[in-house]
Amino acid sequence: SLARIKASGLKLQLCTNETQATREDFVRKLRAMGFDVSVAEVTAPAPAACRILRERGLRPHLLVHDDLVPEFAEIDKTNPNCVLLGDAAENFTYANLNEAFRVLIGMEKPVLISLGRGRYYKETDGLKLDVGAYMKALEYACDVQAEVVGKPAKRFFESALAEMGVPPEQAIMIGDDIVNDVGGAQRCGMRALQVRTGKYRPSDENHPDVKPDAYVNNLAEAVDIILKQL
Amino acid sequence: SLARIKASGLKLQLCTNETQATREDFVRKLRAMGFDVSVAEVTAPAPAACRILRERGLRPHLLVHDDLVPEFAEIDKTNPNCVLLGDAAENFTYANLNEAFRVLIGMEKPVLISLGRGRYYKETDGLKLDVGAYMKALEYACDVQAEVVGKPAKRFFESALAEMGVPPEQAIMIGDDIVNDVGGAQRCGMRALQVRTGKYRPSDENHPDVKPDAYVNNLAEAVDIILKQL
Repeated sequence: SLARIKASGLKLQLCTNETQATREDFVRKLRAMGFDVSVAEVTAPAPAACRILRERGLRPHLLVHDDLVPEFAEIDKTNPNCVLLGDAAENFTYANLNEAFRVLIGMEKPVLISLGRGRYYKETDGLKLDVGAYMKALEYACDVQAEVVGKPAKRFFESALAEMGVPPEQAIMIGDDIVNDVGGAQRCGMRALQVRTGKYRPSDENHPDVKPDAYVNNLAEAVDIILKQL
Repeated sequence: SLARIKASGLKLQLCTNETQATREDFVRKLRAMGFDVSVAEVTAPAPAACRILRERGLRPHLLVHDDLVPEFAEIDKTNPNCVLLGDAAENFTYANLNEAFRVLIGMEKPVLISLGRGRYYKETDGLKLDVGAYMKALEYACDVQAEVVGKPAKRFFESALAEMGVPPEQAIMIGDDIVNDVGGAQRCGMRALQVRTGKYRPSDENHPDVKPDAYVNNLAEAVDIILKQL
């Protein structure tokens, strides 16, 4: 399906909330699975966060997955004036959480940036708490509201659109997550299809706030429909 | 001051949110410091939680401090139908948090009981996240609201009053925490003094919701005033 989109001349951008690996690693994994994707075609929270850090002169204390650290290689991390939280997985230790908390509570005006607000996800060995849960813990302890980078943040979709040079009304989001993919894209002025695969649950079709522009059974069907309308 | 209260014939109950040790250990520590206190004179979250567990036939999955576990020795913990959260300190590992989360999310109607809702506290080696932060993480991940045992829960003060056999209008709370001590006791119909020691901060005197019946410089002054009015 990806190959068919690219062959048609349409522009393509993959929007992921992956924060356990660099974009380079993520693309390497996709290519190993046979997908013809380049790093420039991937919009991910960490590079988006780097742009924000640079724009606002923020020096982060990082609580992220070891494999994500290279994304912040060029960022000044001395004398931190914000805390940047990703899905740190095994790095979510009691000591690391207390350390991030101390950095945050020690600021005159605490700034917490979170790479996503997911509640949990499934791995082969079971369900795991996602970054959103730890974000809530720090928000509560410091009485602060995190700034979320990544889906469903409007700014995140805007940067994907900017990457393609396409206005929102000419773009279509295809995703399996009713809130993060469909809701986020629609709030940005895009149309959005929900695939009935992956995270999709039949109860999504009764979601109180978000209604996709259409449902499709899978990505292949979405591409069929889009290409037919060209 | 404690000795003077007891010598006066007034009844005394210590209300603590301590959940890193059994009441026995807590009293042992106080006695070693020279305070004449018995276990029956201490109201603490864990025994209060045990009453709730028994009343409602709840079998907890415990995420608490190792030293608190003996408080739950008599409680059936097989095939858990609730999660009980205390200030687990070093037991707040990534693995333990995920395990508590999985137990909770696996329930048809998740029940989360939290021994307090503190945001953080200070130890000799620095600030630490308190149980409330981890409670918020699990609440968010499971879309559930925790039932809080301990101050400032109304029921907690009621059980302290029941222990003494004293109606709320004849009791006075003396505490350093504007919300947990003063606010909680007042909502229960008691009067409450805030001491200007310990956790007290001058900004407490402008608290938007809670206003103590009086301020005192310390516990000794509180006892002076109370005994003078007898």
